[in-house]
Amino acid sequence: MTIDPQVAAVLKDPAALIPAIVQDASSNEVLMLAYMNAESLSLTLSTGKATFWSRSRNELWVKGATSGHFQEVHSVTLDCDADALLIKVTQTGVACHTGERTCFHNPLEFGN
Amino acid sequence: MTIDPQVAAVLKDPAALIPAIVQDASSNEVLMLAYMNAESLSLTLSTGKATFWSRSRNELWVKGATSGHFQEVHSVTLDCDADALLIKVTQTGVACHTGERTCFHNPLEFGN
Repeated sequence: MTIDPQVAAVLKDPAALIPAIVQDASSNEVLMLAYMNAESLSLTLSTGKATFWSRSRNELWVKGATSGHFQEVHSVTLDCDADALLIKVTQTGVACHTGERTCFHNPLEFGN
Repeated sequence: MTIDPQVAAVLKDPAALIPAIVQDASSNEVLMLAYMNAESLSLTLSTGKATFWSRSRNELWVKGATSGHFQEVHSVTLDCDADALLIKVTQTGVACHTGERTCFHNPLEFGN
């Protein structure tokens, strides 16, 4: 396991799993939310391919490794209290395993 | 504590705290990430003001109640596995307690 020294230095808790928002770099559409640990963040920064920690499989998860729907990373931004990430990407294919473009496709009834 | 029946029905785990991405409804800029439980989500849907659960203060948190920087909600969308939310808002003032427009203002060095 190789951790980027930058990553170890900036995260609020380098041992924690933190939410990473994935946003389309050109349309600004929010595509999905997944989780990163220090290792997956380091790999994302060094490879330029969005890499997460799968909470269900308990393993590193290069987005697209199975589906071919890779996410080419344009930028990675940490929030003010260093416990959330914003990843801007170019999405190959679709982000959601259901075949939808974005994982956020279930609107809740609002304002009734 | 009043829970919207819709909320109880749709969440993967109605007892869990889940991440809520806040996005500017007109610019599509991602402003912040905070957490909601079933009660704060129900209040967000019924009041139209973004309401979170503060993990540090362990209490309901109407965004802007102290700062005046309220978030008027336009839409609330649940993701495919019902454990993350996307909230589109009109932001009064700024989203970040540091005075920045967005909480995501610390770019990481990338692609070296």
